[in-house]
Amino acid sequence: ALANLIDQKLALNNEKQLETFEKDHARLQYYNLQTSSHFFVNCLKSLYNMLGNKEYEKMQRMIIAFSNHLRYVFHDNLQLVSLESELQEVNDYYNIILLDRKSPMILNSQVDYQLNKYPVPSLLIQTFLENTVKYNKQSDNLLIFDIKINPAELEGEPVMQIHLSDNGIGYSPEVLEKLNSSENDLFAKKHVGISNLKHRIALIYKTNYQFAFYNIPSGGACVLIYLPLLEIPDE
Amino acid sequence: ALANLIDQKLALNNEKQLETFEKDHARLQYYNLQTSSHFFVNCLKSLYNMLGNKEYEKMQRMIIAFSNHLRYVFHDNLQLVSLESELQEVNDYYNIILLDRKSPMILNSQVDYQLNKYPVPSLLIQTFLENTVKYNKQSDNLLIFDIKINPAELEGEPVMQIHLSDNGIGYSPEVLEKLNSSENDLFAKKHVGISNLKHRIALIYKTNYQFAFYNIPSGGACVLIYLPLLEIPDE
Repeated sequence: ALANLIDQKLALNNEKQLETFEKDHARLQYYNLQTSSHFFVNCLKSLYNMLGNKEYEKMQRMIIAFSNHLRYVFHDNLQLVSLESELQEVNDYYNIILLDRKSPMILNSQVDYQLNKYPVPSLLIQTFLENTVKYNKQSDNLLIFDIKINPAELEGEPVMQIHLSDNGIGYSPEVLEKLNSSENDLFAKKHVGISNLKHRIALIYKTNYQFAFYNIPSGGACVLIYLPLLEIPDE
Repeated sequence: ALANLIDQKLALNNEKQLETFEKDHARLQYYNLQTSSHFFVNCLKSLYNMLGNKEYEKMQRMIIAFSNHLRYVFHDNLQLVSLESELQEVNDYYNIILLDRKSPMILNSQVDYQLNKYPVPSLLIQTFLENTVKYNKQSDNLLIFDIKINPAELEGEPVMQIHLSDNGIGYSPEVLEKLNSSENDLFAKKHVGISNLKHRIALIYKTNYQFAFYNIPSGGACVLIYLPLLEIPDE
């Protein structure tokens, strides 16, 4: 009877862990969407203002980009997407921002096209672009966001090397420490998107990946990410 | 040691139940939003078409109603709202539909204004209006949605009596049976909104409420809901 009880306890423990995992995943998706909702409402405000200013051609581009972005963020965020579709989302998001911001902003992208079809977590790049925009609203400088993605090797294994950087105010020391630690406050108030992404990457790739957050000496937030090259799914 | 193990097992069981509840709640919110996302994308499509047709005044009304609706559905759906704000949401949703539908539609509303400040679950009425619109797209008749809300008594307790009906195709016999049974398939494909609402009402009011779904002899889907009158929260 004792052995039986111990078995039951172990089984319950496993079930509890699964429930916790699924709960966290659902909360994560919900939390993520809730964060996005402010952005959605802002897009509508911009559209309203453009309408007042009779900027109809601008509105047309805004509606297309907004509607692509909406569809994209409502995907199940544990499903992988091709690097190509992630870059399309980055482009849609950038277009919304461009149409919305008073000051212009530059997006530089150098991506090895051979990587286009490889699967990556959704919002892998958009998350950082969003952060750059969010934390550099006050800046008078021309804001630049750089994307460099190349094939590389990590401990003898082929990886995708993703280097993202901006010329903004950079991360505060406390934020940097948190982002670089292995603990991940999933429901943090700040940099929610990055915590969310780190969590998803840990779930998808287990231990087989690397992250490094830092500031460039001249200012600006940087991240270097190594992800294993997963197989390209059949079409 | 055996007693100890039994205690541990009971505790684990409780924790598992809590995790399951929170997971279901999170999934429910997420599921609900995902369902809404199609509607969001449709609203943007309509805006795009209106822009092409130079219907600028219509666009203005659409953007306002859409943005109110967006904010509303992103609320935590276990929090109560005043009947008044629910009716405002119904009005926003109705305006979106009116602007979007080819054929017109009528919303009749008779609400005892003394109930305005009383708390109700969010989307209590909107859920049924949405259903009416969704399942009566083909109809050539002028679609009518009726709202009647009055104070009443149930087993000696004061309640809010909510009577919602339309003149559409009504519920199929299978759907009626499911809706009226106490079992609730939370993640059903059809009538997701109603299952969701039933689940939330059960969580909020425990056993202290009543639901009856039926069709009117002349056609049309009806629901009669009794909810206990909760205290009006302080402003």
